Amino acid sequence: MSNYFDYASTCPIDEEALEAYIKAAREFYGNTSSLHDPGTKAEVLLSHCRQTLADLLEVNKEGIYFTSGGTESNLLAIEGLMKAGKGNHLITSAAEHSSVKNAAKKLEADGYEVNWVPLTKEGTIDVSELENLMREDTVLVSIQHVNSELGSIQPIKRIREICDKWGALLHSDCVQSFGKVDLKSMTPYLDSFSLSSHKVYGPKGVGALYISPSVSFQPLLPNGTHEAGVRAGTVNTPGIAGFITAASKSIRELQDRQSKVKALKREFLTALKDIRNHVTVVCESVNSVPIIGICMHGLEGQWVMLEANRRGYAFSTGSACQVRSEGSPSILEAVGISGEEAKSFIRVSFSHEQTSADIEGLVECLKEIASSYSNSF
Amino acid sequence: MSNYFDYASTCPIDEEALEAYIKAAREFYGNTSSLHDPGTKAEVLLSHCRQTLADLLEVNKEGIYFTSGGTESNLLAIEGLMKAGKGNHLITSAAEHSSVKNAAKKLEADGYEVNWVPLTKEGTIDVSELENLMREDTVLVSIQHVNSELGSIQPIKRIREICDKWGALLHSDCVQSFGKVDLKSMTPYLDSFSLSSHKVYGPKGVGALYISPSVSFQPLLPNGTHEAGVRAGTVNTPGIAGFITAASKSIRELQDRQSKVKALKREFLTALKDIRNHVTVVCESVNSVPIIGICMHGLEGQWVMLEANRRGYAFSTGSACQVRSEGSPSILEAVGISGEEAKSFIRVSFSHEQTSADIEGLVECLKEIASSYSNSF
Repeated sequence: MSNYFDYASTCPIDEEALEAYIKAAREFYGNTSSLHDPGTKAEVLLSHCRQTLADLLEVNKEGIYFTSGGTESNLLAIEGLMKAGKGNHLITSAAEHSSVKNAAKKLEADGYEVNWVPLTKEGTIDVSELENLMREDTVLVSIQHVNSELGSIQPIKRIREICDKWGALLHSDCVQSFGKVDLKSMTPYLDSFSLSSHKVYGPKGVGALYISPSVSFQPLLPNGTHEAGVRAGTVNTPGIAGFITAASKSIRELQDRQSKVKALKREFLTALKDIRNHVTVVCESVNSVPIIGICMHGLEGQWVMLEANRRGYAFSTGSACQVRSEGSPSILEAVGISGEEAKSFIRVSFSHEQTSADIEGLVECLKEIASSYSNSF
Repeated sequence: MSNYFDYASTCPIDEEALEAYIKAAREFYGNTSSLHDPGTKAEVLLSHCRQTLADLLEVNKEGIYFTSGGTESNLLAIEGLMKAGKGNHLITSAAEHSSVKNAAKKLEADGYEVNWVPLTKEGTIDVSELENLMREDTVLVSIQHVNSELGSIQPIKRIREICDKWGALLHSDCVQSFGKVDLKSMTPYLDSFSLSSHKVYGPKGVGALYISPSVSFQPLLPNGTHEAGVRAGTVNTPGIAGFITAASKSIRELQDRQSKVKALKREFLTALKDIRNHVTVVCESVNSVPIIGICMHGLEGQWVMLEANRRGYAFSTGSACQVRSEGSPSILEAVGISGEEAKSFIRVSFSHEQTSADIEGLVECLKEIASSYSNSF
């Protein structure tokens, strides 16, 4: 697993999270909506998980809804907040995950007006452009916390100030930031946000959505009976127990994980300097997000990825959610990289559990690939 | 677990299914959309699961989409087929699960016209009423295969004939029939159908939707990249592996399970005769569906359920998906039971794994509860 550098796409499950899943699957199998003991037992566990997540994020537990993942959370939030709003205008960014982009496109097809904030060369949204786009009828601004391709961190506090000026709501896709940066300090600025379990070493098929209880919201389906009507379907208690176990661990160990990630990131960027003529780091920043986007000059990212895979290394050419639909991620155009250069993009994402030796191995692999193409090494 | 009689609400996980989940969570953790080895490994497993399910049901694997469960499958199917259709008319029944009813209500709110077929006293749809409701602009008829409160089996073949006359599509919620009746012999008559994993002893939070590849369909979200664009979000490979393990077992053992269930059902109905003055079995039928609906004369179903729970027995007063939204399930009105009698309804659902002793215990429990209320025993 030390050769796996695609943690931003998905993580292997944490053993403690898996244990929690197994225990809940065996012992807390009841339907949380059933009023008998097996149901109540599952409901008590679910309620405990909700409270734990609320405490980790310092939000009201009444606003937490468990879902099938980040994609569902983003759809429920964006559609639910827009449809409950009085205006017709949504603002989101060119940097968003496909689930946010597709929710916005769905709303556009339904007659809503959508504007896309451009990015600066630093990979963060152009704040003055956001200010220009705000209108009286802007219901919602949806801006991710951390970008999944570049690891750049968006200026949430600044965005909140702009939203407040216009009375707009702020949703944030926090799938890539949860467990990597201090999300708790950011939640007071958000009306809603999305989380995913498998990005923090929890089970797949689980996520959460927070919507401030003070905000109006229209569920996707009417008359829902699970999750306070926001999300229908039998609650996946074992998955949620696994998710919350992994999430608690990620927050408990946050500072330690952050310093490890920063050190590994620094080592990677330093080692890359040996091949600096062949590589551009896109939006370079030594923050605690274990994501680095690179352009490999003159090489196709897809080819580099496959060559690395042949050598036992796994990373991606962009978000796994986009790789089959679009050639190069449009986020690159948004930060001013286009055409041939964009095609040379690869994304490396790693774990706090990896070591300097793992990082060295990856850099050696990239060097080999670059040198097999060019004799200038 | 022998005192648990709410299997129609949810099942404990099968140990083989849990083992498959654990193995996949540990070893097949890659994102199925990633093109490197960990991704490909997960994709190969996913593809194997899809083929296995297709073989079990004798359908084209290209039509199978894995989802987060029955509710999502029903929503995707009903909305997706209606929106791709040329007409404006949907027909469904008064017997449907809340997920189907809510999908229909959502479409009604979007301007579609919905008609609800009434039921006969046998708990099956009134076929002549369905014929009367069919129109030139009927896009879709959505009728469940097996009712979740009464265990009645709908006449799918007859419904298909009617749909064919009018060129309408037929969707069926098969959540309660899969693993209990021979679904394979019914799939040739369906354009689409929904399955749920936890109803066949698989993991929660997983389901499947089949849509015939020859049928036009509009996904809920545009530009989806997972599950052929029908369902967005990272694929829950471990959950799917667990689901397919449980599903395969249920089909492999189908005949054996069916004869066990029929025998247990017969024993239960026979034993009930001792308190026949106190009990009416709703839509009595000794089929292979382990669901029996009962009215306990003069007693509140909710009270009976709680009294039984105090004695260690778990059953429900209706579908767990409806228990918190509506007092008594509207299915009862549909079969001609209303008012006080409807309030006395309980649903007993059991497992092929249970024994005659379990059934006797439950009947004794019901007798005790009835006698504690009435001294005529």
